Amino acid sequence: MKENFPSRALGDAVEAIASLPGVGSRSALRLALHLLRQPSENISRFAEALGRLATDVHYCKTCHMVCDGDQCPICADARRDSRTICVVESVRDVLSIEATGQYRGVYHVLGGIISPMEGIGPSDLEIASLEERVKALGSCEVIFALSGDVEGETTAFYLYRRIAGEGVKITTLARGLGFGDGLEYADSLTLGRSLEARQPFKP
Amino acid sequence: MKENFPSRALGDAVEAIASLPGVGSRSALRLALHLLRQPSENISRFAEALGRLATDVHYCKTCHMVCDGDQCPICADARRDSRTICVVESVRDVLSIEATGQYRGVYHVLGGIISPMEGIGPSDLEIASLEERVKALGSCEVIFALSGDVEGETTAFYLYRRIAGEGVKITTLARGLGFGDGLEYADSLTLGRSLEARQPFKP
Repeated sequence: MKENFPSRALGDAVEAIASLPGVGSRSALRLALHLLRQPSENISRFAEALGRLATDVHYCKTCHMVCDGDQCPICADARRDSRTICVVESVRDVLSIEATGQYRGVYHVLGGIISPMEGIGPSDLEIASLEERVKALGSCEVIFALSGDVEGETTAFYLYRRIAGEGVKITTLARGLGFGDGLEYADSLTLGRSLEARQPFKP
Repeated sequence: MKENFPSRALGDAVEAIASLPGVGSRSALRLALHLLRQPSENISRFAEALGRLATDVHYCKTCHMVCDGDQCPICADARRDSRTICVVESVRDVLSIEATGQYRGVYHVLGGIISPMEGIGPSDLEIASLEERVKALGSCEVIFALSGDVEGETTAFYLYRRIAGEGVKITTLARGLGFGDGLEYADSLTLGRSLEARQPFKP
């Protein structure tokens, strides 16, 4: 499609936008033409905001969350319980859990999940640093907040073998029917597992 | 949502992406995190490609199409018929018509459509320059390739009054049932108009 554009800058912009996941070439053209209709200061400001992703995003030395300096606001917050570490795959998971407003511990962002299919092994992830954190703390709780698919379970099992030890409590997110969900909407795997993992009723 | 981001650069990028039409804040976060996972050269190249929309896109002095210099490749192409001018609303319409491979004339990009509701009047559009082009040519054909809604018809009527004259043939795109479409899928307005504007059958 690119060679059809009479402006190389427009063609390059469309090609760049279309490289984003889930954005087709027609949407990319629509977005590029939308930008082009803006005053040029706005376009420049837009491009600079994206460019700063390359230069101004830092990662927390402790938990590997994105932040502005060496330490993220969560690790720096003395009111958070640094002996409870929630292990997640990505930055997005931290934002999702923070959005619940329910969690007062800290995080550890692995930066991915073990996936032999995609060639991602334990050494590609922030696993050694988790092991060090856990060892340094001595007694702590580590919560596995990983996805429920094969990769997530493989990663959880691998982490368990690396960090299990005296004083280390290891938990995982509860799984079951969604809260408020009726039985008729649950898939049979979820329903079967929920039955198997049934809990004492608390009246 | 912005204040929740532990990195200001990430928050700014998400906000910028979410300002695009049709992109919600969740998609914006997904796209920003996708970019963030790329090597920083790629992020910078991406941002520069968008930034060049502000600086490197020029407009053809004749037809106002986007291009790289003073004249677009279509106006510069001596094989195109410069006495047939297709009047369109936007850059995107030129790309759509070029994609058909059926048109050998030139274009005139109005840069919008007359819309009293949105406060866009004739003086906001490239109408005076169209009038000059038509006058300079003397005899020519002007094709109105505008949308079929009220704004499109208002604009066509206004243009007609400005450019009509001796030697100026004015035509408009054929409207009717889509080629290959069955009657059962046509809306009743289109079907009614197609009946009214019926054509001699050519066996």
